[in-house]
Formats: sequence, C-alpha cells, structure tokens
Amino acid sequence: MKFNETLKDITLYEAGKPIELVVREFGIDPKDVVKLASNENPLGTSPAVANVISEHASKAHLYPDDSMYALKDGLAKKFGISDSEVIIGAGSDQILEFIARSLLSPQDSVLMTKITFAMYEIYAKQMGAKIIRTPSYVHKADEFIEAYNKYKSKIIYLCIPNNPIGDCMTKAEALKVIDAVERDTLVVVDGAYMEYASFKDKACEITPQEILKYPNVIYLGTFSKAYGLGGMRVGYGIANEALIRQISKMRPPFNITSLSLAAAIAALREDEFIARSLALHAEQLIRYEEFAIKNSISFIPSYTNFITYLFDEPLNSTEITDALLKQGVIIRNLASYGLNAIRITIGTAKQNDRFFDSFLPLLKRL
Amino acid sequence: MKFNETLKDITLYEAGKPIELVVREFGIDPKDVVKLASNENPLGTSPAVANVISEHASKAHLYPDDSMYALKDGLAKKFGISDSEVIIGAGSDQILEFIARSLLSPQDSVLMTKITFAMYEIYAKQMGAKIIRTPSYVHKADEFIEAYNKYKSKIIYLCIPNNPIGDCMTKAEALKVIDAVERDTLVVVDGAYMEYASFKDKACEITPQEILKYPNVIYLGTFSKAYGLGGMRVGYGIANEALIRQISKMRPPFNITSLSLAAAIAALREDEFIARSLALHAEQLIRYEEFAIKNSISFIPSYTNFITYLFDEPLNSTEITDALLKQGVIIRNLASYGLNAIRITIGTAKQNDRFFDSFLPLLKRL
Repeated sequence: MKFNETLKDITLYEAGKPIELVVREFGIDPKDVVKLASNENPLGTSPAVANVISEHASKAHLYPDDSMYALKDGLAKKFGISDSEVIIGAGSDQILEFIARSLLSPQDSVLMTKITFAMYEIYAKQMGAKIIRTPSYVHKADEFIEAYNKYKSKIIYLCIPNNPIGDCMTKAEALKVIDAVERDTLVVVDGAYMEYASFKDKACEITPQEILKYPNVIYLGTFSKAYGLGGMRVGYGIANEALIRQISKMRPPFNITSLSLAAAIAALREDEFIARSLALHAEQLIRYEEFAIKNSISFIPSYTNFITYLFDEPLNSTEITDALLKQGVIIRNLASYGLNAIRITIGTAKQNDRFFDSFLPLLKRL
Repeated sequence: MKFNETLKDITLYEAGKPIELVVREFGIDPKDVVKLASNENPLGTSPAVANVISEHASKAHLYPDDSMYALKDGLAKKFGISDSEVIIGAGSDQILEFIARSLLSPQDSVLMTKITFAMYEIYAKQMGAKIIRTPSYVHKADEFIEAYNKYKSKIIYLCIPNNPIGDCMTKAEALKVIDAVERDTLVVVDGAYMEYASFKDKACEITPQEILKYPNVIYLGTFSKAYGLGGMRVGYGIANEALIRQISKMRPPFNITSLSLAAAIAALREDEFIARSLALHAEQLIRYEEFAIKNSISFIPSYTNFITYLFDEPLNSTEITDALLKQGVIIRNLASYGLNAIRITIGTAKQNDRFFDSFLPLLKRL
C-alpha cells in the first residue's frame, strides 16, 4: 500500500514513562514509584474536581456537548473575552495539530528554537513543512527575527516558558517578534506553563486578552499542568474569531470526553488550589537550585514546574535516568533532544526527598 | 492568512443535540429530557465501569500510559490476535482520521454508499480526496465493485451495519468486495454497531480475526455503543502489524484520557452487561417496527441500535424533529443526509413510551 510521503520522515513523541510501565518492568509497587517525568501537578487532582468526575461517572455513556458551551463560557469569563474566540482541544497539543493541518504544506517552513516542545516539529513534519530553528535553545527575539527575515516561515512557535528547557522569553521580547512579522504569518504563543512563569516574574506574563489585539497570533493554554488534569486532555486556544473559525474546521466532533469537559469546567473554580500549587512549586524549586549549586551541577533557571540539570562527562543523562528508573524514580532524559541533561518535575517535598536521596549516591559514584 | 485549499470545501459534522442544549434553550428539566439521538446505550454506563472511573478520579492529574498496554492486551485476548495488531483511537472516528491522513492526497478518491457515516467524507475531504458514492444507500457489493473498477479508489468504506441507515451487508457480500479489489486499496470494515448486527443475524458477523487474513483490510470497533462509553471516546482498529505501524505515525501522544483507558479496560469484562443491553435492544426494536407498521410509516429494517423512519409529505422530518425537541425528546433529523427521515435510538421501555406518546399526536395532526 502506498502511504503518503510525509510518513517516511515522521518522528514519534517520546512520552514520559508511566508508573504502570515501571511496575510491569521492574516489579516495583505502584505506591513506591515517584513520577517526576511529565510535569504533572504534584498536588494531584483537586479533590473538588475529583468529586465532579465521580458524580459524572455514571453518565459516561452520553456523548459530550460538542458545542462545549459551558467550558468556552467559563474561559471567556476568566479571560474577559468572547466565547467565539476560544477553541478547545484534547490538550493544547491538538490545537497545534489543527494549526499545522490548516496552514502548512510542503512549500512552507516553520520556525522555533533549537530545543523546544517536540510536537511543533512532529505536526509540521506530518504536513511536509520544513523545520527552521534558531541557533540558541533559549528564546531570543533577534534570532527569531533574523531567521524569519531569511525564511519567511508560515508559523512561528514561541514556547513561553519553554518546555523542556525551562527558560522564559519576556513579554517585551515576544512582542518584538510579533511586531516584526507579516500578518500572514501565524505566531503561536504556547503558554502551557504560563501560570508558573507569571507567578515567578510578571515580565513574562502574557494574557490571552492582549494576544487578541493581533489578528495573526494565537494563545494556547492547558488544564494539564497547574490545573492538575494531565490525564484528561483538555487545552484551549484563544485568537480572533476568524482564525478560530478556520482552524475549527480541523476539529473532529467530540474531541473532548464528557468527563474531561466536566472536570475542566470545575477546575476553573479552583483558584485556591492553583495558588497552593504555585506556592508549593516555588518553595520546592529553590531546593533543586540549592542542591545543584551545592553539588556543582549546571542548571537552567526555571520558569516552569520542572528544572533542567545539565551534565558534563563522565556524568551521563541516560545512565542516570536508567539508574533512577530501577529505583522507581521516573525523570526525563533529554538525550533525545541532543542534550546531556535531565528534566525533573518539581514534586512534593517528600517526592523531591526521594529524588535527592536516589540521585546523590549516583553523583558520588561517578 | 492563507489557509490550505482543502479548508474551503470542508463540511462539519452535525452532532446529535446534547441534553444540556435542550435544557438551555427550552428550559426543560434535565431529568425530563429523553435523548434518543446519538445511539448511546440506554442502560447507561455499566455500574462496575462507573465505579472504576470513580476510583481513578483522583488520579486525573497523571498522563495516561501512552503505550496503552493493558487495553491493547485486553482486546488482543478478546479477539485472539496480537496486541501489535491493535491501534487505539479517541473513538473509532480518530482511526478514520489517521487512515485518511496516512493514505490520501488530492489525486485520490474514496468509495462509500450514497448515505453512510459522515466522517468518512469529512476526513477524506480534509485531505482533498474525491468522494465517490454507490447509487444505493444500502450496501450492495456489485455497486461497490462496479464503482471501484471505474475509479480505482484508494479507500473503500464498508459500514457494517450502516449508520445512519441501519441496513447491514452480509459477510459474504463484504468478502466479495474485499476479494475484488487490489491489495493497494484499503478496505475499512467499520463495525461500530457490529455487536447489534451479529446478535440479530450471524450472516452479518465479521470478526477482527478473520479480517487479519487480508493485508489491506482494517476492522474498526468502538466502546461508544454497546459498551456504553460514548462520552469516553475510545475506539480501536485491528489490522496487520505493518498497516498498524504506518497509521500509528499519525496518532498523537496521549490521544485517550487516563479515565477512558481505565473505563475501556473495565468494560471488556462486562459480558453480562453487553448481553443484557443487546437483549433489551432486540425486545424494544420490535415495538418500533410494530408502531411503524400500525401507523403506515416506512422504515428500514435495522441491524443497529437505532431505527430509521422514512416519511412522505406532508410529514416532514425537520418539523417533526423540532416539535419533539420542544417536548424534550431528542431524535436525529436526517434532512442533512438528503432524506425526509428521522433516526431514533432504541431506548429503554420508558424512554420509548415517551417517544411514542410525543410522536403519535404529531402524526395525527399532520
């Protein structure tokens, strides 16, 4: 059977290893596994949201409200925008997919930093587009503008703050890029971790409302991180109505489960839970910075809910990740991104103790 | 902004109206709404499965196991196949999307009956492919073979039994089509409602295992209908490993929620619930046939969990659907398929009473 040419060049996303796999492969009791690999909220699902999910469990036979009226309305009120300016995706990932499929063809290129969220490349390659990367892995406006002027890319991805690195472009720098590009180029402001960045530094904060001033910019947000719903697959895109209408043509019906919709709607009321999550994170992040300094490990100052430790030989990120995995501590090896580095989700105090206790002997041994 | 050409020609799927909408628009109490529009299992979610969902609610922050090991293994054991022959989609819909995106380009055509599941056309059009339809809306092997010999379509969709019509091609007829096409044409055997058809008539039963004999055929099944999980969005595709490997390249990571995975795995143990669902359905379907005969309404003998009533003027499917909706009875108008017809999901005895009680006065009035 003759498959489309683009399939030949497709790379697959490497997901953080699930607890189930560690249980299966190493026979570790699930309760002894610490997963700091997928940037999930260590406080878990808010109890109020978990209750809403349970209340809806017996209605799992009913298809979701495909208009997603209540969730769009909740987001519109939260951000002071109109619900026609909102699109809902199965994670903000899926909105990246809609965007790529609406705009890209093999004649186009897309622009991103040297190391950033893998799905930008994957969806662009599915459409046969060429991938252009800035020389630096952190976001630098001048590098974006220079590359844009050369390649006139159809889509520019700004990951603010940047996953899996942790750096954050300021709003001023982001606007510099946005102002430098033509109106037929789409700029994606991916704010999946924005709650963490804006909590740390107001200079990084970009709101969906201010994005709406630009007809060629879309803001992406998610319920997977600070909102504690990584397993439910709900993200959102916010842009002017005309753009939303176009990319909505690629949205399949019922792309969000009934329970995901109910959970996301409930999560919008969880301001206290979010505040508590951000405070815990800020407090625990310092421990990772102090640990790194004390043990002479390079790290990238983080504006996200994870931190990236950079190694020099003989320290090897693959060996370290594997050794931790065998002890039931799951973190993310960044070797597939071309870095001798690991990414650790900032967990609860107890989870982080477990990481430090397992990691320190490995450092000493090598 | 210049969007891809294919967007111009895209039609959107018309979903069955959700209970929430009727509540919003007509101010009807949710418990007084009867939804017979989306072919959901009227027995609801199996209580055992609802319990599993509740038990997992507090883990909604954790990303799903993207290998979907346990669900694939459960399906493989159920059907006597290997788990490398299984792909999981957010509904079998999503597998239709992977197939279209892997195989189609604007040079290709796809072949289906005159009236069948709308997503075949929608996904094919997203890829710019041409839509070829057999003259009849029921599936006739000879019509498929004749059209195939003329157009050499890249994909043939056999909806067995056929939604939204209700007819069913026999296995012998389906195999006649499969045997008549070349090996570089993909035949999709969409068995979303297969449980109902094979319960009624063994001549309609096609198992995933026998499909595996053909390298160019894929079987699709779903948890949305007989399994009572329409809101959870879980479907599966079964085909030889090479084909599964190719279309998997279009699968985004985490395309199924954590709770959907847990629910589907639990649902595989629900043989008794499925048997009870099929028995209730068979018993209640007879009432719809008898009602139609008594009131001189044409209908299509159904092999699915719904029935299609065909009207002659002055009976008008749009007026009838709207009049029922205002009373809180949601059914599906087939006007958008070019038919003066309605599709009613076979409900519980009580739900069906409600339909007959609301529908009969409309018949008399006109």
